[in-house]
Amino acid sequence: MELAAFMSQELPRIEGLLREKTDSLSEYVRPCASHVLAAGGKRLRPLLTILSARAFGHGGDALPMACAMEFLHSATLLHDDIVDGSELRRGKPAAHKIFDQTSAILTGDALLALANRMVAELGSARLTELLSEAILQTVTGEIMEVAHIRDFGMPVEKYLEIITGKTARLIEAACLCGTVLAGADVAGEDAAKAFGLNLGIAFQLADDALDYTSDSRVAGKTTGADLREGKPTLPLLLFLRSLPVAEASRCLKILSDDDQRCRQAESLVKAVTDGGFADQTRDHAQVYIAKAEDALTRFPDTPHRKLLKQSLSGAAKREK
Amino acid sequence: MELAAFMSQELPRIEGLLREKTDSLSEYVRPCASHVLAAGGKRLRPLLTILSARAFGHGGDALPMACAMEFLHSATLLHDDIVDGSELRRGKPAAHKIFDQTSAILTGDALLALANRMVAELGSARLTELLSEAILQTVTGEIMEVAHIRDFGMPVEKYLEIITGKTARLIEAACLCGTVLAGADVAGEDAAKAFGLNLGIAFQLADDALDYTSDSRVAGKTTGADLREGKPTLPLLLFLRSLPVAEASRCLKILSDDDQRCRQAESLVKAVTDGGFADQTRDHAQVYIAKAEDALTRFPDTPHRKLLKQSLSGAAKREK
Repeated sequence: MELAAFMSQELPRIEGLLREKTDSLSEYVRPCASHVLAAGGKRLRPLLTILSARAFGHGGDALPMACAMEFLHSATLLHDDIVDGSELRRGKPAAHKIFDQTSAILTGDALLALANRMVAELGSARLTELLSEAILQTVTGEIMEVAHIRDFGMPVEKYLEIITGKTARLIEAACLCGTVLAGADVAGEDAAKAFGLNLGIAFQLADDALDYTSDSRVAGKTTGADLREGKPTLPLLLFLRSLPVAEASRCLKILSDDDQRCRQAESLVKAVTDGGFADQTRDHAQVYIAKAEDALTRFPDTPHRKLLKQSLSGAAKREK
Repeated sequence: MELAAFMSQELPRIEGLLREKTDSLSEYVRPCASHVLAAGGKRLRPLLTILSARAFGHGGDALPMACAMEFLHSATLLHDDIVDGSELRRGKPAAHKIFDQTSAILTGDALLALANRMVAELGSARLTELLSEAILQTVTGEIMEVAHIRDFGMPVEKYLEIITGKTARLIEAACLCGTVLAGADVAGEDAAKAFGLNLGIAFQLADDALDYTSDSRVAGKTTGADLREGKPTLPLLLFLRSLPVAEASRCLKILSDDDQRCRQAESLVKAVTDGGFADQTRDHAQVYIAKAEDALTRFPDTPHRKLLKQSLSGAAKREK
């Protein structure tokens, strides 16, 4: 089976349950929740939960667990867009712009609670614990990112810690929860965690590279948005490390000044991409893709393992 | 045993675990979390969980469940103060003023996740389900409240629906979760729910009355803050219903205009209190206190039931 065939079979079921659960919310919560869910996205997390469950022989329905992961992800998007002051989400106005900040904050809380309730209804305290832990790590990663805004001298290790928290932990949990549903042993759980964690890091690295190279008409957001917002991501960190000391120091001075940074954003982005640092970031992503591939060798040899492998190449070749 | 003696025994244990769990958070989350927890409060919810558990014969430790309720409550306070634009919380600057909005949003999320994790660690999916449901209802109540800002023509029933959601459901859950810990039967659970729900409504009614009558130096917030913020609460709704049609319509016109409402806030507050509508609101609270008392008769006859009865009079006689 090809990944495309699997997705065309599973995505309608995922969309169906997401819609059913969103419709069940109070009329006061529903409009903003529907907006963020309808804005789309690849449904990567629920697909990973279902594939991981199947890969470890789960015959039952992984759909509620899978959709809880997407609700959780949507909740973080609602809060993130406020925190980042983002005007767009996937090319459409962000929820806090269409509705208001209040709706976006409280609807995010409602989706967090909905996700928790859906998992609690599965009757496994272990799953609810894994979910809560993943939320805590995701939020901690986000706070860490905000604390390091404009910290362009940040070591690469700190940057990796941030993206592991804000992105990779939830993807790790999506895979892990699938194997827990399937009743996999500790070795199986560990393999799924390693797969998800490394895929998550690669996914964020690819996203960070894309921010420097994307065609804004395809990506639905401005090229260089991270730089403008003062977010030190890997392409920029690698660029700065490549400069002679005096040059790096002059550049850091420009970057630290919000005004100067935004005025020179275009030429800074060009310097980063022309220097090959977006490509280097994609090379880094490939290293994590290879680690995730390695983790897959510890999965049972099933058709679903092949699909997970196919999903890896998609994550590394993101165009939007 | 007197309630004061019970509290002086339990409060240090509650404070201890709240501090221990807050200290275990990442350094990025800790400062804002510590601030909101240290701002104090009566720890009503954890005390109710412990008392309800004991009243139904629970011999084990109800402390983690109890403290999870307080973390959850703190999370809602962090988000609420942003939503309401409140500058003060219990007489001190609100967290989003001392730190920033980003910290307050994300730390609220972290405390929600922490509360969920603490309950998940107890190993009962039922408890995590009750918790998630309570969060969802609380948030829905808050969104409903915001949707009805400046809706001074709102029926009293809608107002009761709002305060039930935003305040009473969490207090109901605090009591219910105590009885679930104790393994009470359905009749016991129902009694605890009725007790908590009615106490919660009474508590909010007393709070809404207090907003019209409090000495701002004692309460730590401005008298008439609800009116200024455009929140239609029971004292004002009762006042408006008491007016002749033409007068009510003139008054609604003033209230609907943010500028006029704030300029005339003091005289409006005086009209409401002089008319006895804060007192009438307290009378309404007493009706719910009586219902809660009635629910207590269905509790086992233990010393802890007596303490729960004592806690009722405190809730209705709030001075801050």
